[in-house]
Formats: sequence, C-alpha cells, structure tokens
Amino acid sequence: MFKLFRNSQNLRLLLTRIDCKTTRLLLAKEFSTPTNEPNEPKIVSESIPGPKSKKLFGELNQIQNAGSVQLFIDYDKSIGNYLVDVDGNTFLDIYSQISSIPLGYNHPALIDAVKNPKNLSTIINRPALGVLPNHNFIDQLRSALLSVAPKGMKEVQTMACGSCSVENALKAACFHYRAQQRGREPTEEDMRTCMTNDQPGSPKISIMSFNGSFHGRTFGALSCTHSKPIHKVDVPAFDWPIADFPRYKYPLALNADENFKEDQRCLNKIEELIEHQSKINCPVAGMILEPIQGEGGDNHGSKYFFQQLRKISSKHGIALVIDEVQTGCGPTGKFWAHEHFDLESPPDIVTFSKKMLIGGFFYLPKFRPDKAYRIFNTWLGDPSKLLLLEQVVKTIKQENLLESIKETGAYLLQHLDRLQTQYSPAVMNARGLGTFCAIDFETPELRDKVIKQLHLNGVHCGGSGSKTLRFRTTLTFNKKHVDIFVERFERTLKQLRH
Amino acid sequence: MFKLFRNSQNLRLLLTRIDCKTTRLLLAKEFSTPTNEPNEPKIVSESIPGPKSKKLFGELNQIQNAGSVQLFIDYDKSIGNYLVDVDGNTFLDIYSQISSIPLGYNHPALIDAVKNPKNLSTIINRPALGVLPNHNFIDQLRSALLSVAPKGMKEVQTMACGSCSVENALKAACFHYRAQQRGREPTEEDMRTCMTNDQPGSPKISIMSFNGSFHGRTFGALSCTHSKPIHKVDVPAFDWPIADFPRYKYPLALNADENFKEDQRCLNKIEELIEHQSKINCPVAGMILEPIQGEGGDNHGSKYFFQQLRKISSKHGIALVIDEVQTGCGPTGKFWAHEHFDLESPPDIVTFSKKMLIGGFFYLPKFRPDKAYRIFNTWLGDPSKLLLLEQVVKTIKQENLLESIKETGAYLLQHLDRLQTQYSPAVMNARGLGTFCAIDFETPELRDKVIKQLHLNGVHCGGSGSKTLRFRTTLTFNKKHVDIFVERFERTLKQLRH
Repeated sequence: MFKLFRNSQNLRLLLTRIDCKTTRLLLAKEFSTPTNEPNEPKIVSESIPGPKSKKLFGELNQIQNAGSVQLFIDYDKSIGNYLVDVDGNTFLDIYSQISSIPLGYNHPALIDAVKNPKNLSTIINRPALGVLPNHNFIDQLRSALLSVAPKGMKEVQTMACGSCSVENALKAACFHYRAQQRGREPTEEDMRTCMTNDQPGSPKISIMSFNGSFHGRTFGALSCTHSKPIHKVDVPAFDWPIADFPRYKYPLALNADENFKEDQRCLNKIEELIEHQSKINCPVAGMILEPIQGEGGDNHGSKYFFQQLRKISSKHGIALVIDEVQTGCGPTGKFWAHEHFDLESPPDIVTFSKKMLIGGFFYLPKFRPDKAYRIFNTWLGDPSKLLLLEQVVKTIKQENLLESIKETGAYLLQHLDRLQTQYSPAVMNARGLGTFCAIDFETPELRDKVIKQLHLNGVHCGGSGSKTLRFRTTLTFNKKHVDIFVERFERTLKQLRH
Repeated sequence: MFKLFRNSQNLRLLLTRIDCKTTRLLLAKEFSTPTNEPNEPKIVSESIPGPKSKKLFGELNQIQNAGSVQLFIDYDKSIGNYLVDVDGNTFLDIYSQISSIPLGYNHPALIDAVKNPKNLSTIINRPALGVLPNHNFIDQLRSALLSVAPKGMKEVQTMACGSCSVENALKAACFHYRAQQRGREPTEEDMRTCMTNDQPGSPKISIMSFNGSFHGRTFGALSCTHSKPIHKVDVPAFDWPIADFPRYKYPLALNADENFKEDQRCLNKIEELIEHQSKINCPVAGMILEPIQGEGGDNHGSKYFFQQLRKISSKHGIALVIDEVQTGCGPTGKFWAHEHFDLESPPDIVTFSKKMLIGGFFYLPKFRPDKAYRIFNTWLGDPSKLLLLEQVVKTIKQENLLESIKETGAYLLQHLDRLQTQYSPAVMNARGLGTFCAIDFETPELRDKVIKQLHLNGVHCGGSGSKTLRFRTTLTFNKKHVDIFVERFERTLKQLRH
C-alpha cells in the first residue's frame, strides 16, 4: 500500500476508482484552458533555434555567457500552454520555464490583477516587508499562502527566490537545534565568537542532504546539492554528510521486494550517518530533501521511505526540511507533493518557490525564530508576487485544477507505459505523480537527441539527471495537450529509430 | 587629496567649486520632486506605532515572528518622500525601505510603465531568463544596466536579490581563482570530488571580508558579514579570514596623520592575512567589501585605502568584489560609490540590488564563467524589475538627480556640522557622500531614543552600527526636505536634552 502513488499502474487503478467523482467535478465545471490557445504547435523556421534567436544569442553573448539560452521568446504572443519564439515558432510547452509557470502564459486571471488600478501601487512600491509591510500583507498571506498551507502548518516566511528559501529554512533548522543543545538562549560567548566565524557561535553542526538532490546554487544550498558537477565544481562547500536517496527498479510492482530492501538500506545508512556525525562532534541539525528529486533524474522515494524518515528525524530531534520548490503548487495532483506520503506528523519545514511565484517556507511553531532579525533581509519577497499568487490559488480552487492534473497525469502515464512497451528498450521507467512525470532513455545521447528532435517537432521540453525526459507542465495542461504531445513524441521516436 | 570626498568640509569646498555648473543645470531643468507631495509630516496618532498598526502587528505575529515590524503602511497614499501609515500618520522618509526606493513612492514614471499595456506580459510571465529570455531582454540590459555600468565594465549578470548577487559574485571569484591555480579546466578528479563536497573539487580556498561589513544573510554571504551577532549566531560559517576595515577619527582634516596610519595598519594586516592563508593552504580567492559600510555603522574607507586594496588584490590575483548593494544607484552623488575612489583599474566585480530594484553584478571579462550553468538559477532576476529600472535610470539622467543629490547632501552635511557643534558632545562625526550620510551619538541608548523621538516628530529613519543614525534618502530628496528634517531633528535633540 505504501508505494501506491509511485507506481503508475496502481495509480491508474486508483484513478479509475475516483473517476466517478472526477466525472461529477467535470460536469460541475469544465477544467480551464485558455480558450484562445492555438490548436497545435507550428514550426516555421528551418532549424531550432531559428535565425532571429541565433542573432540575439550572439548579442547577448557579448554581455554575459549566454550558453544556456535556448530561444528568445515573444511573451506577448505566448498563450496558455504554447510558447512562441521570436522566429514565430509555436511550441507546446511541457517544461513551463523550469516548472515555474503555474497557469500558462498570459492567463486572464493574472492579466486582470495587473490591470486592476487598485493593485498599481503594490507593483510599484516594493516594501522592506520585515519592517514596513503593506496594510493588506496579512490578507495576502492568508489568501495566497495559508489557505494552501501543508496540513498542520500555520506559519510562513516569504522570500524572494528558491535558493534564499532553502538557505533560510536551513538557518531556522540550525537555530532550533542549537537552542535544544543549549537549553537556553545564545550565550555571551556565542554572540562574541560568531562575529569571527568561530565556535561555538558559528557552530560545528551539519545539514544532511542526499545523493542526486538539488536545492539551489548559493553556498549553503549548493553544499546540499548533488545532481551535477557543473553546479558545484570550484565552489567551497561545507563538509556536511550526504545520504543515499533510494534508487528503485521499475516497474515497481514487479520489484517490490528489492525496492523495499533499497529503502531499508538507505534508512540504515541515514541512521549510521547521524551517529557518525555525533561522534565527530558535528551533529546533524537538519536534513533536507525533495519529495521527488526533480533535477537529479526524477527519482522517487516511497511513502514508506518518507514515513520512516519522519520517524528518524523526530527521534533524533533533527529538522525534516522538505524542499517543494519544484514539486509544490499542484503538479503532482496534490498541492504539496509530500502530502502523498501520509506522514504521521507534518514535516518541520516546507520550502517553496517557482510555480508559487514567490519564495518562502512554511514551518512548525517550534521553528519560529525566537528573536526578530534572525530570519530577515531587505525585501523578504515581494507583495506584487503575492498579488499574482492570490489569483493562481483562486483559479486552482475554482477550476479544480488539482483534479484535472491527477486525471491528465494518469492519462499521460497510460500513454508512456504503452510507448515504453512499444519502443523497448529505447525508453523505460515511466513514472510520476500528476503530470510531474518522467521517462528514461537507453542512453544519455538518445535522451539528448530526443529533446532536440522534440523541439523540431514543436514540443518544448527538457531533461533531468543524465538520461531522463521530465514533464513539468502548467496546471492547465489537459488530455488534449497530452494527445498532441504523444503524437509528436511517437513521431520523434520513429524518426530516431531509423 | 585622496581623502577628498570623505571629508565633509572638503566635500563642501569641492561643491562650491562645481556650484556654477550645478546652477547651470538647475536653470536647464529643475530637479524633480513629485509635485503632489505633502508640505510636511503630520502625526495624528498618540503613539507610534498607532492603534491600527498595533492591531495588525498582533495578527501578523500569529503567522510569523513580526518583531522587526515597525509600522503597517498605506502604499496607495504614500507619495514621493512621504510615507503614510495605516493610522494616517505622514512621515518624511529618510530611510526609504532600507535604502531600496530610488525615486520615492508612486513615482509617475513607474506608474506609466505599469499602466502601459505593452508591458503587461512582462509583469505576468516571468521567464527562466537563462534559458528562454524575453525578446527585448538585451535592450533592457543595455538601457537599464549597461548604460550605467561602472567605468570599464561591460558585462552583467542579473539576480533576484542582494544576497544571491553576493553569493554568485563570490562563486565567479572562486571559478576564476581555481582556473588560475590549475591553468586549465576542472579535472576529472575535480568533477568527481565536488559531488561529495570533497577536495579538490570543493576547494579549500577562502573569501576575505572585513570587520563591520554586511553582505547578506545566506550561508556564503553571512560568512562575510560581521556587523551584528544576531545575524550570525548559531549558523555554521566558513572559516574565512577577516580583515580590519579602517576606523577613522573625525573631523578627518584634524586627524589626517592618525587616519593615514590606520589605513596603513589595515593594509599591512590584509597582506599578512593573504600570506597566512597561503601558508595554511586555504588561499584567498577574493575579497569583498562595501565602499561605505552601510549596516555596520557608516564606516568610510579613504580613497587611498581603496586604491591600495586594488593594487594588493591585483598583485596577488585575488578578485576585488565591491558590494554596492546599498551604495549603488546614485545616493552618494555618483552612480556607483566606488567611482569616488579613482581606482587605477576597475574593481573585478561590482554587486547591486536595492535601489536598482533587481539584483546582479557587473564583472570584468576574465570573470565570465567559462561554461554555461555555472552561474545560473531558474529566474536569474525578473524582467518586470528591469522594466521599472529602465524608468528609474531614464529619470535619473533626465532630471540630473546625481547632481541634485550631491547638492542636497552637501547642504545636509552643512547642517549636521552645525548641529554637532551646537549639541556637542551628544552628536558627532557627521560624514557622508551625497545624501548617503550619517551622524553618531554619544551612546547607543541616545541614538535609539533619538530614532524613536524622530518618528514621533514625523521623520521615518533608522540606525546603523550601534550608535549611528543613517540617512538613506531617495534620489528625489532635496533641500526642502533637508530643511524639514533639520527642523525636526533639532526639535528632537532639544526635547531629549531636557
């Protein structure tokens, strides 16, 4: 049972069971798609990128290293799930700006918010939120954030981006751990020694992270990131412990015993690492991980794995930080991906950004900093992003987008399962929750070729890990879009087979 | 000569000399202030904060630690240099959201930009700038950033906030240093070992920072921050070297010899630290400092000090990172504060944020990352902020706001000089460049009382260091505002004397 959601076959069984409910919801209100979306992708340039993108690339490359740029985009013309580039190519977008566009391009709810004259001053006057918040800041926090808070969480701190969310969440974990260690406020010695980065004020404590994880690229977050060397090489890192995140064999249903052993192996190693860190006097103050490793190759951990992790972290008084920067805001079919795990008690801290349009983290009351200015910076986020997020949350609720994403995701996985049988051994390991799906390729080279060819076939997409295609759709992505994708994907596989 | 600008008396002499030019500029175009500003502050509640702010404070404190919040603000009603709170109090604002409001509240140029329908999609569709930039991104970089680039700098990287700007600037310094050390690309061993935070891939190299400095609160930036213990305590830090930033005696003109010795002492120690770090095999890859220590007490370094620092860093192949997050965008009377120092060659990296509305850093070509994705994150800033910054830069140029700030700052310092004579020994050490000014108080307690009383007298302001009042005005702050401030400040000093 505990692996129910990660197994695409079981997931479909479950969805068949809830289909009646879904149908009722569908009858009540059609899931939303921007009505003026194109009917399908259209590629007009002979190569991707086309000549105009190439020209702009050359210009940008005189100002900064533009090596990661794929296309220049006409965001005025992009609409819903369709991205239009400067060469007039129209792509179906299954990557949505590295998973950061919640409702699609130029969504009417967001247009209305920006056009509304009463919101003008919020867009223009960005306050120092920790000192002089806007009069409606509390209302914004309630409607945009607390109304979708993970179960059991009632406090939230806003931040400007994902990296800062992670960095400050880890700081909150350290504050709490040191307070527990001391049983009292920082001492005079703590206050004095921290000023010169010395112990005990700058304590020798550690954050546990996981192989394959991605949490950001600032020094603290980067010390917890282990997905690709290019992110990390040449940057000094904290000597913090790194645990194994489970790696399963697919299909899950046929490898249940082996995968269970893998969970157990990882959990045992985690306990060993915690003990080891205590012995070397650099105890673990917190552990951070993603519900699904979204950059490192769409690696899933089982319900059992996460449930045990919650027990282990509670037992040792170690903060469990769930990083939902990529998984949060609905793409897995629940607002927060960790809600699939039915943890016996909530995580201690949950970070967010990307689709949430603003960064930040929810936390349990014991992780509230005991003093002002411990978690602080000039902006602490941006009320103009909360303004947009309010509209996103309202739309998700009004249009039952979580239900829609569950249904769309199940439909997508059905197709991916069929294709991996049909095109074996080129593609394999179809997996996912909601539309937060992935499929692996036989080799990294094949994966890269597929992505390139998909672009030429009108689908904008991206990879994760070394040989995975990741699906990071908006929440308005629906079965119609799946059909278009599948047709183009199959075309691509056929083209590359020959 | 080299201390010309830091000495308020010399500064005024200089300004007298340029007065003719200033007058000509004034005749050509009156410096801008929003025309519908109130004539003066108005306090209507019996206490500050008033009852409505207090009530909201209680509500916010249920959602997060609201201990740093001073007032809740009505940003619709705030205008120009006047901040209006929810209790209807109108303050003259000399703090401008911790120095982050460039032109004042609800400036017409920004209103126009947001109301312009052609900008709508930029505000709604935040791209992953490193992958899919907007078609006009290059134009935005040129008009909003390159047109005001520090002398000698032609490349720029955008970021979302000040901390991320510093973190990534330090990474760029590390990349360059390691490339120099190796004389080639990262080795296979580098790429492998960095994945587990081990040497040599995660190298033992260091960043030098300075006593009293502030660079942000994420783990890397916080290891370089040494202004107040509350920012740092209980957070693990890198064991990086900390140098002394000069501490001068005022008035500068009467203490020239002693202050020169202080410069020399600090410079010698910096060289010693660099040698020491080499000996212990943790060489200095970069040094980071503010042109004026803006959080740590408005500590100024002389032209000579910075010129020598440029020589030392060049000699040792150490990146000189000038952190202009608080000083950049004009408040010192030059667009970048380090331009006052007439360095023999530009800094290697210059960070910005706050008044620039977007974060980022300028850098010399040799600090361009050699590969894509080394400096990267999902958002890499926000074109909707570049949109606003374009208007800010245009307004600064059209309305000669740098000249205005020079003139206003000199006028302010004149008054502060008078007051420190008149109210000696309660206030002292008036200093500053442009309106980026400060004055010290006899004791921290007196400083805190003055700030509180100034609030009651209708001036919103804040401190730096332990006993300093810092001036962080907008760029539209002018002599009329100075007069109002001075009258309220003098009233405050008289009230507290009795």
